[in-house]
Amino acid sequence: MKYTIGIVGLGLMGASLAMALKGFKDARVIGTDIDEEICRRAQAEGVVDEAYAEPGRVFGQADLVIFCVYARHIPALLQEHAQRLKPGCVVSDICGVKGPLYDEIMPPAAPAETLLPEGIRYVGAHPMAGKERDGYENAEAGLFRDRGFIIVPTRRSTPEGVALMRELAQYIGAGRVAEADAREHDALVAYTSDLTHAAASALCLRPPTGFDPAFAGGGFRDCTRIADINADAWTALLMENSANTADALSLYIEDLQRFHSALVDGDRQALFALLHRAGENKRRMQGL
Amino acid sequence: MKYTIGIVGLGLMGASLAMALKGFKDARVIGTDIDEEICRRAQAEGVVDEAYAEPGRVFGQADLVIFCVYARHIPALLQEHAQRLKPGCVVSDICGVKGPLYDEIMPPAAPAETLLPEGIRYVGAHPMAGKERDGYENAEAGLFRDRGFIIVPTRRSTPEGVALMRELAQYIGAGRVAEADAREHDALVAYTSDLTHAAASALCLRPPTGFDPAFAGGGFRDCTRIADINADAWTALLMENSANTADALSLYIEDLQRFHSALVDGDRQALFALLHRAGENKRRMQGL
Repeated sequence: MKYTIGIVGLGLMGASLAMALKGFKDARVIGTDIDEEICRRAQAEGVVDEAYAEPGRVFGQADLVIFCVYARHIPALLQEHAQRLKPGCVVSDICGVKGPLYDEIMPPAAPAETLLPEGIRYVGAHPMAGKERDGYENAEAGLFRDRGFIIVPTRRSTPEGVALMRELAQYIGAGRVAEADAREHDALVAYTSDLTHAAASALCLRPPTGFDPAFAGGGFRDCTRIADINADAWTALLMENSANTADALSLYIEDLQRFHSALVDGDRQALFALLHRAGENKRRMQGL
Repeated sequence: MKYTIGIVGLGLMGASLAMALKGFKDARVIGTDIDEEICRRAQAEGVVDEAYAEPGRVFGQADLVIFCVYARHIPALLQEHAQRLKPGCVVSDICGVKGPLYDEIMPPAAPAETLLPEGIRYVGAHPMAGKERDGYENAEAGLFRDRGFIIVPTRRSTPEGVALMRELAQYIGAGRVAEADAREHDALVAYTSDLTHAAASALCLRPPTGFDPAFAGGGFRDCTRIADINADAWTALLMENSANTADALSLYIEDLQRFHSALVDGDRQALFALLHRAGENKRRMQGL
């Protein structure tokens, strides 16, 4: 029997992953989506080998199941279908926030309440890739190329499961790959992703009277690109990681207040020191 | 006698402008720089037709003089050399902050103290272009291509002078061209450029422990690109426009505090409203 990969959710991320995984382990790639029309198209267009509107059919056949849906849907899907999972199956997800989700799937304080049957492994993943526009129609095989990829081992991971995700990351063309536990992952993502989206969005809240695009240099365009945001998806992501994001925002606001003070006080030295340190950190972060 | 353009300062901006202006009005392009070696190279490499370490030689020959030096050097240069300017000459600059400079060159309260002899016109310009790396060696003719270009008329502008700068902007390949007086210009630049550089820099002041580039998605990279900053040049720019920049920073900090409150209060609706409005504004700003 052929190795089978099951993709749960055929939106931007799921469909892109299905495309990128074509040929991986010579596997059959099957998928499920709540939208029957998307299932029909994904199969007709060869994005998956087979697609089922009924998720149970994917759970029952796959050796690797990857959740590509909003985190809030995952516990219910596991509750309903986890008993169908094949023994030895590895389950993963590509959600942007891990802590609350894994606490629900595998409650540390109540191991008996885990939603994972025995023998089922769980290794989280977070490809640092995306687009302004979501949805199946924006999917592309190259979405993950040269992007960061985070592997998030859990209490239910094995070295083999982690190695499988490393292999997968390499196959879809990921750039740098890192491992972090859920807590570390969520704190770092709050900085690189959640804070960044809040910072870019806040830049667009009150453009001054008389704004003209002639004034928008490359810096402004780059810094506000991600403000053209999917408000629905990002409300969910920021709320799921709200404590970490609020902490990162507090530090950011403090640092901006330092800029403000230096300007108001006419303190050239302080301003230079802030800009100089920022430049050094930026180059160091790039060079790591 | 051939039309002559004089570039004062052959750093990144001045040398790029000299290259981009090759052929404009079939003019002779001459330049001056405080660094004799740069003068020698600029002439040898054909960036200018002639270069002089002595700025007076440029002032005496040019029909259009463009200051491409830090704003703080301009009043002294005018004080020393303005009497040499040819009658009918148009003077310009490409500085990022206009108000304080023009108040010094043409004090509104004391017209007799103007540094501009009679018959000399002054039309400011601000090409919204730049690079992380300054200096002659980073200059390129294409620097201004498709970038915004602001023309800043002054009390000493004429319609012909403004038309000349429009022609110049078009010749060097500028994208959108706008006109604004010095006060409007400085307020808008405080938003699109000064605030943006402070926002990007502040993002890099305190990267969390355990930061790994695998976590840096495209959003983070874009939002922090300009944090790899010339701290010296930007200390000067921000300080020259400190009041406007402090105002823009205050609004920005207020808006970030709204994000913070929504996260801490778990107020999903408020967070969605902020992201939604940011997205709408971003798309509107792009489409103007």
